[in-house]
Amino acid sequence: MVDHARLVVQGDDRPGIVSAVSGLVTELGGNIVSLAQATSDPSGGRFFQRTVFYLPDLATRLAEVQAAVDERLGQGLGMDARVVEARKRKRVAIFASKADHCLLDLLWRQRRDEIEMTVPMVISNHPTLGDDVRGFGIPFFHIPMTKENKPQVEAEQLKLLAGNVDLVVLARYMQVLSGDFLEQVGVPVINIHHSFLPAFMGANPYQRAKDRGVKLVGATAHYVTEDLDEGPIIEQDVTRASHEDSVKDLQRKGASVERGVLSRAVAWHCQDRVFRDGHTTVVL
Amino acid sequence: MVDHARLVVQGDDRPGIVSAVSGLVTELGGNIVSLAQATSDPSGGRFFQRTVFYLPDLATRLAEVQAAVDERLGQGLGMDARVVEARKRKRVAIFASKADHCLLDLLWRQRRDEIEMTVPMVISNHPTLGDDVRGFGIPFFHIPMTKENKPQVEAEQLKLLAGNVDLVVLARYMQVLSGDFLEQVGVPVINIHHSFLPAFMGANPYQRAKDRGVKLVGATAHYVTEDLDEGPIIEQDVTRASHEDSVKDLQRKGASVERGVLSRAVAWHCQDRVFRDGHTTVVL
Amino acid sequence: MVDHARLVVQGDDRPGIVSAVSGLVTELGGNIVSLAQATSDPSGGRFFQRTVFYLPDLATRLAEVQAAVDERLGQGLGMDARVVEARKRKRVAIFASKADHCLLDLLWRQRRDEIEMTVPMVISNHPTLGDDVRGFGIPFFHIPMTKENKPQVEAEQLKLLAGNVDLVVLARYMQVLSGDFLEQVGVPVINIHHSFLPAFMGANPYQRAKDRGVKLVGATAHYVTEDLDEGPIIEQDVTRASHEDSVKDLQRKGASVERGVLSRAVAWHCQDRVFRDGHTTVVL
Amino acid sequence: MVDHARLVVQGDDRPGIVSAVSGLVTELGGNIVSLAQATSDPSGGRFFQRTVFYLPDLATRLAEVQAAVDERLGQGLGMDARVVEARKRKRVAIFASKADHCLLDLLWRQRRDEIEMTVPMVISNHPTLGDDVRGFGIPFFHIPMTKENKPQVEAEQLKLLAGNVDLVVLARYMQVLSGDFLEQVGVPVINIHHSFLPAFMGANPYQRAKDRGVKLVGATAHYVTEDLDEGPIIEQDVTRASHEDSVKDLQRKGASVERGVLSRAVAWHCQDRVFRDGHTTVVL
Repeated sequence: MVDHARLVVQGDDRPGIVSAVSGLVTELGGNIVSLAQATSDPSGGRFFQRTVFYLPDLATRLAEVQAAVDERLGQGLGMDARVVEARKRKRVAIFASKADHCLLDLLWRQRRDEIEMTVPMVISNHPTLGDDVRGFGIPFFHIPMTKENKPQVEAEQLKLLAGNVDLVVLARYMQVLSGDFLEQVGVPVINIHHSFLPAFMGANPYQRAKDRGVKLVGATAHYVTEDLDEGPIIEQDVTRASHEDSVKDLQRKGASVERGVLSRAVAWHCQDRVFRDGHTTVVL
Repeated sequence: MVDHARLVVQGDDRPGIVSAVSGLVTELGGNIVSLAQATSDPSGGRFFQRTVFYLPDLATRLAEVQAAVDERLGQGLGMDARVVEARKRKRVAIFASKADHCLLDLLWRQRRDEIEMTVPMVISNHPTLGDDVRGFGIPFFHIPMTKENKPQVEAEQLKLLAGNVDLVVLARYMQVLSGDFLEQVGVPVINIHHSFLPAFMGANPYQRAKDRGVKLVGATAHYVTEDLDEGPIIEQDVTRASHEDSVKDLQRKGASVERGVLSRAVAWHCQDRVFRDGHTTVVL
Repeated sequence: MVDHARLVVQGDDRPGIVSAVSGLVTELGGNIVSLAQATSDPSGGRFFQRTVFYLPDLATRLAEVQAAVDERLGQGLGMDARVVEARKRKRVAIFASKADHCLLDLLWRQRRDEIEMTVPMVISNHPTLGDDVRGFGIPFFHIPMTKENKPQVEAEQLKLLAGNVDLVVLARYMQVLSGDFLEQVGVPVINIHHSFLPAFMGANPYQRAKDRGVKLVGATAHYVTEDLDEGPIIEQDVTRASHEDSVKDLQRKGASVERGVLSRAVAWHCQDRVFRDGHTTVVL
Repeated sequence: MVDHARLVVQGDDRPGIVSAVSGLVTELGGNIVSLAQATSDPSGGRFFQRTVFYLPDLATRLAEVQAAVDERLGQGLGMDARVVEARKRKRVAIFASKADHCLLDLLWRQRRDEIEMTVPMVISNHPTLGDDVRGFGIPFFHIPMTKENKPQVEAEQLKLLAGNVDLVVLARYMQVLSGDFLEQVGVPVINIHHSFLPAFMGANPYQRAKDRGVKLVGATAHYVTEDLDEGPIIEQDVTRASHEDSVKDLQRKGASVERGVLSRAVAWHCQDRVFRDGHTTVVL
């Protein structure tokens, strides 16, 4: 991945963008390794492109490349365009509570090098998972939360995160982040929702799924916005259920789906594959 | 399937039901071919059992068998118990509008003998599908509906159905059946819902799924009750979607899922595998 | 789709192809609508690109565009490059025997406009499906085959096909095409194999799957080559099975998978999405 | 699960078995909680039944119950019939090599109480996974293996296992067990095969899958027999793949499928749900 860059472009669709991007890369001496693009609507929609290219001495030339991109694609075409080094892993803070399945799957995949991230810290409102996390050699910060101290807890969390992370992942973190927190954190936040959204929004989804007699249980990974459970969906999956499954069985099946869905969503985000487009996403 | 009976038992769970049923079958000279049972809750729940047994000369002995079942399982144990001949196919009326995918899949599977039913009639509020249906040798009744004539249309439908069918299937029938109709029809009604309930209830589900950026589209087959989209779920399935799919693409993918889900639900119903339990079902 | 072209490029990978293609499209006055590309191996592999672009007056300018493509991408870069009008549907001949599921699904999807093809003829070695096919308004040619007359039958088939089709689809056609036929037919041939290749190659796959106790049954669509069951795979899918399924049940479940897999494979081929790469395919 | 027993019956099918079993349970004072049965062939096939029943003071009455079962179902009906206490967890030894995914998933699910087993030991021919295993509080025995010392290693393994385990699970253990070992171990052995058997038997399945261009990769859990890769299949699953996946990607995707498949197979075995029937299994 040395000397490989990702050029991520997004904006109002117009003729000639693909050509402008590939022309610019060639001019700069780069060689396109892969290119994927999408349009939300061929006439008057939004445009998205992810281009991976090889450029010798990328690290020393990065500023120059970003400047050219800004000029030609930003000022020239009005696109939002960003260059990142592929070898630079995203720094991901994971928030958890007591459930271990999503957290451990992320840490295990990080250790196996299946997700291009580092995990500088895990933050939890419970001490439960401390030993597991520290066993991976990762700092674990336990910050207890009560109904009263939420602002202080969030302030403490923000202090720990400041400048240290590129992404926050809520791995079954059972607290709602405040609008203030989301505004100040300055990086995207990904959540795993324990149901196939928009089905079973709110509390006790597995009990309600059981009561409704569903034949599938699912999970949804999405970016967090102020509208709880309404953020842009990144990934979803389901597994089969039946009348034989108790609520506890549904939770177990759901947990297996959740960890897979969240891991894929985080992996794609860390590869700069996920573009936000209003309430939806484009995954390239 | 000659001389094979299905004994379908349902009621409040209590000790000894399985034993009572199998003992009774043996006493009557029957041989159990398959038995499946379930309980909604081991203590104080509902009990469900489906037993298939072989009994020589079943046709001539059916009344005697049902009488014994009524006495021993009905009056004796307070269960709802019913004997049906396996070789007797359910008579199924299909309601459709303009969309052909669910209707044709049912007719095609009936012709291939994949669903144990006969189809004495198809009723539609549009003439569109008449040729297709009659090509299968099945009567097609076109009864146009306006906002004003719904009561008369339903009366006419009920007259056609009366005594002729064991099940009504709504194969993308785009009219809501009235509470009166449901009360008078006297047989179960199965509907296919174009989404993974309870997600996207109501109108335009595929547009709303697109707007929400879902990564899966699904379908739900359920018994119809007066609460629209709230009846007991029989079967569900999903298929993968992405930003590349237009609303029309989602509809196509959805149609493929819908026809599979509805066909399985109808096939299971026709084999007496589906038990209703409040808002849910047990499929044995 | 009027004035939309697909530019399909394939060859040894080398720096600058993406840029050369997009530059050429821009020069010709075209506007890239979508672009997808892949490489089998970033160093020394094969390159594949599918570009859809809008060009006013495409029909009248097609020869000029193809000439420019030949010069710049063919002679200039040594690529195999082809321009096709998106609105021009592929002409597809379907071969069938007695089983109807794959054939009917293709015809039904063609009628619904889900596959961008026309079907100028269906050829069968049995008369069984004639009525169904003619019901769709499509010519049906019944050419009986015996052990002795295979060369004459194939000669007759080739005469019917000559100049009339762009693709042959074997929709559960139970005869092996000779090497001579494949050489002379001059268009690709797609087959549906009744198993998840390379499992259960050869005869009686469902009986063998049953004997082996498999928990999934599948289907594979592939291009036909002289090595039976060894051609490049286009699409595969599976469905769940269990000890409860008889061989007949497995065949029914398999049939549902087969028709879906074959329909997707044909649809993708007709959109020029499938590239052959030795024993494998790239689907863009 | 206190005072709950599982009665597992298997043998040549004949009339009256279901009734005999349920009658016996009732006679003994037990109450049937769940019953599932299957027949490989209604006429002349094999019969399988799993019955869970509640019996007060089960622990003290177990010998008496087994004796009655032996007399009535064993000697009386020629069935192989066995009673086990539901609360008695199976003792499972796990064999591993260097790959951690299947091993860790089993240990993690055991800790979460998702699999009804205890793990008295993990045995490995490599030291790699020692820390992880011991972190779960489980003994880890590293027994290095060379081409020469296999008989001694197997003897040592057998000594560790003797009397201590009810099941051996090969969690990506990269050594073939000898026929001698299988004969002497005296308990079932479950293996996870890194492909969707019988596809890609033998070495390098992911490379071969890549070369063949498959669109799905899978995994198979099976009982180990002397015929490598031919033992009765317990569970299988697949996940989607494409030309974009390198061999390493396929291995990663495969690993996710493998751990799920193996965990389900072990969980079902530990609940006495899996019956062997020649080359196949029945999972009730």
